[in-house]
Amino acid sequence: MNELELLQALKNSRVSGIAAADLGDDCVAVAPRTIATTDMLLDGVHFDTSTTPIDLIARKAVNVNLSDLAASGAIPTFLLVSLSLPRSWNTEQGLELMMSIANSAAAFSCQIKGGDTNVWNGPLVINIVAIGTLHWRGQITRSGAKPGDQLFVTGPLGGSLLSGRHLGFTPRVRESQWLLDHLPIQSMMDLSDGLATDGRRLAEASKVDLVIDVGRIPIHTDVNGSGEEQLDHALCDGEDFELLFCIEAKFVDQLQKNWPWPTPLSKIGEVLAGNGKVWLKNRSEKHLLTKNGFIHK
Amino acid sequence: MNELELLQALKNSRVSGIAAADLGDDCVAVAPRTIATTDMLLDGVHFDTSTTPIDLIARKAVNVNLSDLAASGAIPTFLLVSLSLPRSWNTEQGLELMMSIANSAAAFSCQIKGGDTNVWNGPLVINIVAIGTLHWRGQITRSGAKPGDQLFVTGPLGGSLLSGRHLGFTPRVRESQWLLDHLPIQSMMDLSDGLATDGRRLAEASKVDLVIDVGRIPIHTDVNGSGEEQLDHALCDGEDFELLFCIEAKFVDQLQKNWPWPTPLSKIGEVLAGNGKVWLKNRSEKHLLTKNGFIHK
Repeated sequence: MNELELLQALKNSRVSGIAAADLGDDCVAVAPRTIATTDMLLDGVHFDTSTTPIDLIARKAVNVNLSDLAASGAIPTFLLVSLSLPRSWNTEQGLELMMSIANSAAAFSCQIKGGDTNVWNGPLVINIVAIGTLHWRGQITRSGAKPGDQLFVTGPLGGSLLSGRHLGFTPRVRESQWLLDHLPIQSMMDLSDGLATDGRRLAEASKVDLVIDVGRIPIHTDVNGSGEEQLDHALCDGEDFELLFCIEAKFVDQLQKNWPWPTPLSKIGEVLAGNGKVWLKNRSEKHLLTKNGFIHK
Repeated sequence: MNELELLQALKNSRVSGIAAADLGDDCVAVAPRTIATTDMLLDGVHFDTSTTPIDLIARKAVNVNLSDLAASGAIPTFLLVSLSLPRSWNTEQGLELMMSIANSAAAFSCQIKGGDTNVWNGPLVINIVAIGTLHWRGQITRSGAKPGDQLFVTGPLGGSLLSGRHLGFTPRVRESQWLLDHLPIQSMMDLSDGLATDGRRLAEASKVDLVIDVGRIPIHTDVNGSGEEQLDHALCDGEDFELLFCIEAKFVDQLQKNWPWPTPLSKIGEVLAGNGKVWLKNRSEKHLLTKNGFIHK
């Protein structure tokens, strides 16, 4: 079994009591102007306690959640932190993890508000719930892209797992808030599984097609290899935690002229009428993107 | 290391960014009139996948959270469900777990709103966050007991783990709402670690002493042994998931006369001025309770 099979089976089963519509976006509304997201991180899957320093484990566990909030247009406020610590750890290690989580949260004015702590014979498990306050524009989803919209990404893509960048990345909370302060963003998500897979998710949720201009995809300097290999990395590596978003064409100039952040911003393509496909355009050629991004094995 | 050592070290460390005051109560405010609680349940600690049917694992994972909400005076609305499933499971087992969680939630008009699903080489891990809407009286905490208040528990206590009742218990959501509808409850918590430990927590949080009348402690029929042994079980077994609460003496008659539930209700003692101690009264003798309730090893 893998995660996608199970999620697909769940969707097909149409269990009453599961908000099937919400299985798409990472964040869900839990109160007026309040959304929540959750990620469970596991030793041996999302980090490796034998090689990763505790503060970087903590940072990743917090920031993957803050990245989800950012993509939905929320400012983080509180965390709920559930830990299952290996019995072999000592109290200092447990404290270091907790304090590192608090520090990573504090970098975004966010506070640990509660949680649950266990000690067990299994590997380290961290579950974080991040709760955020929505921008006045409301929750931004994957499903708002319209034909004619222009497609943007922040930051260069690829090589995150190979270089270890997936542990120390900065979630795009400030960039997201700036975007919403200044522009009517139509649709947004964070890139956790790679532009190929996540682009298709946005296209499917919005019931549109995306055309991505190969020459405009920003490739990270962490990526090596031939041009073709580099493109593969940028499309499929995953864990970039950059923003993918759409705005109406008439706002492109305003966005590009006023973007105040050191984080690179790239217009990589546009939205067409369609039904969930992603096309790669290379000069005059256009082919269907069939590659998949990263899936945790 | 055990959990209590870590939590104590955390309190002592006074890490900024951790709401230390909130480490007491199980539920925390996350939005106006909205509270959240979270519990992580682990194979081999809180259930045993080799002997426990999947639907009972699901039921416990949901209900320990609903019990926390009930104790704080909230009605459950949404769950966020994070799962890490053993790689040896097939899709049907994953689906059964998810559907059983949805069914247990639906029994209290509560919906799975989102979550995170992983497959890994470790044992089954379930983290559930329950979000609830507060009663108009607001959040009921452990810290509101006042000298002169009378102390009540629902249901008989003891033998929950031995009998397997900890898997199939019913969280006291309805009883809690009725109490708040009809009476100015001063302080409430659910009994997860046993009346001895949890009673002391309520006494410490409220800065009072409790006097418990030994003869009035309701002992579950699941408990065997001598009178002394039975008392030990009722005080220390844990996982009763009953409500422990305080009301002003003048409301006792009204409470006892109008209590409409089949769930037993017992007046077991009273609140005195003090500093966090629990006393056991047996006829005219009174001694300090030093026994501890259940702590997951």
